[in-house]
Amino acid sequence: MDKHISSQFDAELNSISTRVLEMGGIVERQIQWAVQALVEEDGALAKQVLDAERAINELELGIDADLSTTIARRQPTARDLRFLIGISKTVSNLERAGDEAARIARMAASIAESGHGRRLPVAELRLAGELAATLLRRALDALARLDVEEAVTIMREDDRIDVEFNGFVRKLVTFMMEDPRTISPSLDLLFVAKAIERIGDHAKNVGEIIIYIVKGLDVRHAPIEQVESVVR
Amino acid sequence: MDKHISSQFDAELNSISTRVLEMGGIVERQIQWAVQALVEEDGALAKQVLDAERAINELELGIDADLSTTIARRQPTARDLRFLIGISKTVSNLERAGDEAARIARMAASIAESGHGRRLPVAELRLAGELAATLLRRALDALARLDVEEAVTIMREDDRIDVEFNGFVRKLVTFMMEDPRTISPSLDLLFVAKAIERIGDHAKNVGEIIIYIVKGLDVRHAPIEQVESVVR
Repeated sequence: MDKHISSQFDAELNSISTRVLEMGGIVERQIQWAVQALVEEDGALAKQVLDAERAINELELGIDADLSTTIARRQPTARDLRFLIGISKTVSNLERAGDEAARIARMAASIAESGHGRRLPVAELRLAGELAATLLRRALDALARLDVEEAVTIMREDDRIDVEFNGFVRKLVTFMMEDPRTISPSLDLLFVAKAIERIGDHAKNVGEIIIYIVKGLDVRHAPIEQVESVVR
Repeated sequence: MDKHISSQFDAELNSISTRVLEMGGIVERQIQWAVQALVEEDGALAKQVLDAERAINELELGIDADLSTTIARRQPTARDLRFLIGISKTVSNLERAGDEAARIARMAASIAESGHGRRLPVAELRLAGELAATLLRRALDALARLDVEEAVTIMREDDRIDVEFNGFVRKLVTFMMEDPRTISPSLDLLFVAKAIERIGDHAKNVGEIIIYIVKGLDVRHAPIEQVESVVR
């Protein structure tokens, strides 16, 4: 992800980067499986997602430990330090996205068990889930290339997921009012939608991290128009 | 929060610590006000919470920038480095807790506007909100003293908030089924409960950070019994 004069330092950075991308790949798959488990009422697949959570947690702990060791040993400054801080924040976002996948899987298991799935508007969430998983992968690809233009595009697209979420909540309210017996499983679905929306937020956060690493600017709370004018 | 031989470094650490505690104080107040705005249907107070969000964001950006500068300039290792990394993670947790307070305030404004407050079980959330705000303050007090015993206690107490949350969701389902017209405002309340539960999670995270700084152990995904045996 980054070039450096010390080849040993380079090797350390590459090793860390590779594992972050590996972790990202696992999280992306977890999200896809969790949503699939929900839509297809596949309790066994939901359980598989929950079992794999441990691997993500272990990657997080391992990468974070290596980041501390690298900072202590290499004493990086400027962009190298921003890169390591950015990677640390990315790992935290990936772990939290993994938590959201686990939440979706728990809801999927609960809905599969209740047998209410057929009566619920689960299919609507398939697209939103795929959108969020794809956005997260694109964010990590952009991080690998340190591509600030793509980072801004990702930040913009997260807004689309938020709009989808609000629309879904409105539909769900109508749905529950028409048949109050669906209220309890509908709330499970609401938490799934919320988890998907949060995954989009994590992708957006990675976009902000890329801009921080490359430009040295912390754009976390800046309006998107301002971010665009800075980057382009 | 920490002792060090270089008095200049000490001064930098103290300045950062002071601002983290200041930020924590603001976030705690934001949570209390947001819950109060909800319970008392006080739209003006809710707006006040939303207006103050900017101050929290600026504190986050400022403290994070100083942390990077201090790491680059002082090149800390071992416990000093863990302390700075821990503070950075604490700031991130505080900012996210502040986001949750803003979410509560937005829901409070929406409920106040709708005039549905009297028909909703809002009072139940007052206690949960106070519990979460208090837990966050205790976590920051424990961070100031680097008190690992208290850190473990806080991690345990977060479980209580989670239990309260699950009980509240069940009550809310019954409530909505009895009167489906309350479904839409009840969902606002559900998101408030979720936000309170997340604030508890942030307090718990600060507990884990304290153990990381003092013991050098990353206990984020360890069972609480294991954490206790390590600390005591």
